[in-house]
Amino acid sequence: MNKFQVIFLPSGRRGEILEGKSVLEASRELGVGIESLCGGKRICGKCKVKWVQGDLSPFTQDEEKFITESERTEGYRLACATQILENAQIFVPEESRTQEQVVRKEASERSIELKPAVVPRFVELSPPSLHDPLGDFDRLQKTLSEKHNLPKLRMDYPALQKLSQVLRQGEWKATVATWKDQEILDVKPNRTDDLYGIAIDVGTTTVAGYLCDLGTGELVATQSMMNPQVVYGEDVMSRITYTVTHPDGLEKVHQSIIDALNQLIGAVVQRSGLTPENILELTIVGNTAMHHLFLKIDPRYLAVSPFIPVVHRSMDIKARDLGLKVHPSANVHVLPVEAGFVGADNVGVLIAEEPYRQDAMVLIIDIGTNGELVVGNRKRLLSSSCATGPALEGAHIKFGMRAAPGAIERVRIDPDTLEVNFKTIGEKNWKSEAKSASAIGICGSGIIDVVAELFRNKIILLSGRFNEGVPSPRLRISDQGSEFVVAWRDETSIGKDITITQHDIRNVQLAKAALYTGAKLMMEKLGIEKLNKVILAGAFGTYINTEAAMILGMFPDCDLRNVYAVGNAAGDGARIALLNRDKRVEADEIARKVEYIELTIEKDFQKEFIDALSFPHAKDPFPHLRGLLKE
Amino acid sequence: MNKFQVIFLPSGRRGEILEGKSVLEASRELGVGIESLCGGKRICGKCKVKWVQGDLSPFTQDEEKFITESERTEGYRLACATQILENAQIFVPEESRTQEQVVRKEASERSIELKPAVVPRFVELSPPSLHDPLGDFDRLQKTLSEKHNLPKLRMDYPALQKLSQVLRQGEWKATVATWKDQEILDVKPNRTDDLYGIAIDVGTTTVAGYLCDLGTGELVATQSMMNPQVVYGEDVMSRITYTVTHPDGLEKVHQSIIDALNQLIGAVVQRSGLTPENILELTIVGNTAMHHLFLKIDPRYLAVSPFIPVVHRSMDIKARDLGLKVHPSANVHVLPVEAGFVGADNVGVLIAEEPYRQDAMVLIIDIGTNGELVVGNRKRLLSSSCATGPALEGAHIKFGMRAAPGAIERVRIDPDTLEVNFKTIGEKNWKSEAKSASAIGICGSGIIDVVAELFRNKIILLSGRFNEGVPSPRLRISDQGSEFVVAWRDETSIGKDITITQHDIRNVQLAKAALYTGAKLMMEKLGIEKLNKVILAGAFGTYINTEAAMILGMFPDCDLRNVYAVGNAAGDGARIALLNRDKRVEADEIARKVEYIELTIEKDFQKEFIDALSFPHAKDPFPHLRGLLKE
Repeated sequence: MNKFQVIFLPSGRRGEILEGKSVLEASRELGVGIESLCGGKRICGKCKVKWVQGDLSPFTQDEEKFITESERTEGYRLACATQILENAQIFVPEESRTQEQVVRKEASERSIELKPAVVPRFVELSPPSLHDPLGDFDRLQKTLSEKHNLPKLRMDYPALQKLSQVLRQGEWKATVATWKDQEILDVKPNRTDDLYGIAIDVGTTTVAGYLCDLGTGELVATQSMMNPQVVYGEDVMSRITYTVTHPDGLEKVHQSIIDALNQLIGAVVQRSGLTPENILELTIVGNTAMHHLFLKIDPRYLAVSPFIPVVHRSMDIKARDLGLKVHPSANVHVLPVEAGFVGADNVGVLIAEEPYRQDAMVLIIDIGTNGELVVGNRKRLLSSSCATGPALEGAHIKFGMRAAPGAIERVRIDPDTLEVNFKTIGEKNWKSEAKSASAIGICGSGIIDVVAELFRNKIILLSGRFNEGVPSPRLRISDQGSEFVVAWRDETSIGKDITITQHDIRNVQLAKAALYTGAKLMMEKLGIEKLNKVILAGAFGTYINTEAAMILGMFPDCDLRNVYAVGNAAGDGARIALLNRDKRVEADEIARKVEYIELTIEKDFQKEFIDALSFPHAKDPFPHLRGLLKE
Repeated sequence: MNKFQVIFLPSGRRGEILEGKSVLEASRELGVGIESLCGGKRICGKCKVKWVQGDLSPFTQDEEKFITESERTEGYRLACATQILENAQIFVPEESRTQEQVVRKEASERSIELKPAVVPRFVELSPPSLHDPLGDFDRLQKTLSEKHNLPKLRMDYPALQKLSQVLRQGEWKATVATWKDQEILDVKPNRTDDLYGIAIDVGTTTVAGYLCDLGTGELVATQSMMNPQVVYGEDVMSRITYTVTHPDGLEKVHQSIIDALNQLIGAVVQRSGLTPENILELTIVGNTAMHHLFLKIDPRYLAVSPFIPVVHRSMDIKARDLGLKVHPSANVHVLPVEAGFVGADNVGVLIAEEPYRQDAMVLIIDIGTNGELVVGNRKRLLSSSCATGPALEGAHIKFGMRAAPGAIERVRIDPDTLEVNFKTIGEKNWKSEAKSASAIGICGSGIIDVVAELFRNKIILLSGRFNEGVPSPRLRISDQGSEFVVAWRDETSIGKDITITQHDIRNVQLAKAALYTGAKLMMEKLGIEKLNKVILAGAFGTYINTEAAMILGMFPDCDLRNVYAVGNAAGDGARIALLNRDKRVEADEIARKVEYIELTIEKDFQKEFIDALSFPHAKDPFPHLRGLLKE
């Protein structure tokens, strides 16, 4: 096979690429970040690149859907659908470049009862002699049994290897780190209590780590990063497809998250003046697919009916068996999963929010790249997941993007002039105050804002259709249908108007209808008509405008004073499980107890879904929106 | 530093060696086998080489003890005491070359009750559906709990990784390999029962592996090899010294046994048409130092008073944590040790011979490179170890050698002519029948034979001194004192007479007196005067002439019909523990129960030892030798 010289612009990265490889593959080999939400399956249209020099493969039918006639004449192509046939130069436009996401997974303030699995125990042994020649470990065990009421502790092998030196170095005084009163993980000379753990939330898009002092419960540092698996597909399904269609796919996707965690752990301990060896335990949450990929267990059956996970219940696995670079004896506690589409992250949300201890009827919506719902109270809890699609996170939206600098995150439309004011991530002020703007696209919270504002101002109708009668230069008809200009070309840095299209609005409708339908069917199952509380969880949740969300009808009517965002509750759950071992038992219990509802097999699903497509709903009343909408 | 070209003859191996390295170090780097019993500490004198060309470092005082004046003029040196100073050629005489040992660790025929820790369980699961979406592992667990009464089984991580594929491949029929009803090690589609294990005896000199079918108990194959740690010292003490005096010593000595075991396992499974992945469990015995070096735990405190091991009790460690290449989930069961000098090998002997179930008062002597003693019966058992020195294995003996081809292993002296007849390993016939011979040296059983024959024929006296009045050309005085010619120069292949010297006899006396004194002091502790049974265990034990051993006074008087050799009982114990998990419990119990006696702190030790130096003893009667000795 021939190899050709490929140069990517404007970065200038270059290298030899085998003939026939796609431009997207070439970009990965050369370390050029090209956005690809679908992982190269030609269905997201995000990987547009511009031909500069050199012949490429012929234009395909797949590309016609995403590349307009005028773009085509300018040389635009989809990177995933275009093969290298000779030496080439390819330009990556700004909107196609992978953006560093603004990480929104701060840990919230919660008071957590401290009862960690790993605790230090100070021991003082009698030195051995010819008349008392008991072995080191057996001597330690005797003291632990007699003075600490801990018989039958086993010792992890690496700890055993250093035992004799440590005991003598401390002159028979030592501190033993025990795990769940079952296992000795470490032994150090004299008295010491510097034990640390890390709680990790493996999100589809973002990974967050919370470094905690196991002695005090203090949150020492937080560190987040992109989940590097995004190069294998933006959503769960495309990653699973990647593992199924590539012989070494599972290995690659798994290894990329392990490498990322090692990097994250290395960074967070260094910032805190520690070393990876200080980390004696980890807890992990993530949706079921992330859970399987982290554990390198085949996720393929999650993706086909009846959507069976390999394992539900929580597990403790040696970090060394997973290739995680922490203390050699550290255990990784992986929280349980509820179902194929309701994972350990949702269990984390549950032990953080504890709906199973409440009388109030609660709806919890966890909006990540997937949507999970829980409805109920102490008597009964139902969970389900719904295919919101990635629209609420900015994908499958013409100018949608991740929550990165330059993304429009807040939008207001003046009711009188219908003029738009917006705020982008990375700017302190709204456009109207800053007098200038350089937007790149719209992220999830901006999309919800703009659609709610369009509806509130009757620029779109109940059905979601644009109201063609509205007199505004922003509402116009393009070659792809009606669209509304959110930012004019000179307010952007991409050289074109940023718009929201009829197609985009349709995607938002599909997403919010899925959430609403799920919540409603679950309420019907429980025989309730009213929610006392709505909790919006997820990194996304913290930034969402709860009023805008209800105006769209993302969830059934509720007193807006009882609708609130709790931030990354899944990550909080991981932290709670790290600091309190009783909550792990609770997690396993609740994961078994919560009843998973497969919404798609509910007979009313289709009918309810169609009614829920309207803003806020075709039939259901929203008494708490009275006064917020015109008329 | 300069490097010089060093050539070893007659092998012709050559290579660059750093200036100042010893000839012994150079030989190891270039893969030339030079015998070194002491591991390069200049105290065994076995590593004689002959200078051919090139300057070496000056002759040392240490060498004067081993190199005669005439040898010195011929260019003989000790390889460990001689440094490379320029390009050199060095000849390795045949008697200094490392010999492939004849492995004498056959497994004996024993009937073992089959109750292995690892057993196959056939399961049939109901397939999942949308209405029964339980996860694969949880589904398996449910069946194991409901139909096999095995709740709460955990699953080892590598098995979990293949679970989903295996269950579907077998259409929800599978065989699960469980360990001690606690852990699932493996899962295979459909019904299968090919489970294997290996019992391993890590001897100081020889390593033996016994491949067993865990389903039938059958001994499928046996494989033995030299313990490659011999390059770091022939005996336990020199190996411990090596680990203490070299920064990476423990790592090296440990890794060499792990590499060897992987080689041994690879060979034995291949011979049996299996792969290492078929091996689902291992059991290990070895003396306490071998046990520590195998586990890479610091053995230094075994070598100094009060001789404390790091751990007594048995352990189960994942083979993967030890770097052993077998099934990824296999456990290694390491048998317990009794004391710093009575190890897991002795525990193996105990569960094989079961003295704790007998009324008869038994003495068990396990003669390996170290000597261990057990005396007692069902009421009470004592154990001890004694520093026999390596004489009984052929070391510290002028023409001593390991049990390798060419070694004299049997000796008879004609009472009338005082002529010698002998048999060497590798020859079917005695010298007198074969009419020719090409001996290289004398191995352990040959040494015991020749000394017993010399005593029986009054060529040596009770005190062990040569009887100078005996008229034989074989008895002569050399520059190193009196000696007796066992094989004339033309009966050897080393170009000189093979003799047994006064010094050699002294070493045998020291060894046998240690064993005798140990046995006697232990008998006194138990308040007994008579043994009902003497069991000679150890690879060495099978080949020893029990009559010759008693003539020398290696143990107190006993009816010779009740003195027998049981071969490698330690290895048998490892095999028993592999095939019967109840015997592991028994092993832990007996290791705790047996009372270790530190002989050197017994007040009568010195006095008893001196009396025991005589053949067979200065004072104690040997009624059962009546008629076997002249007069």
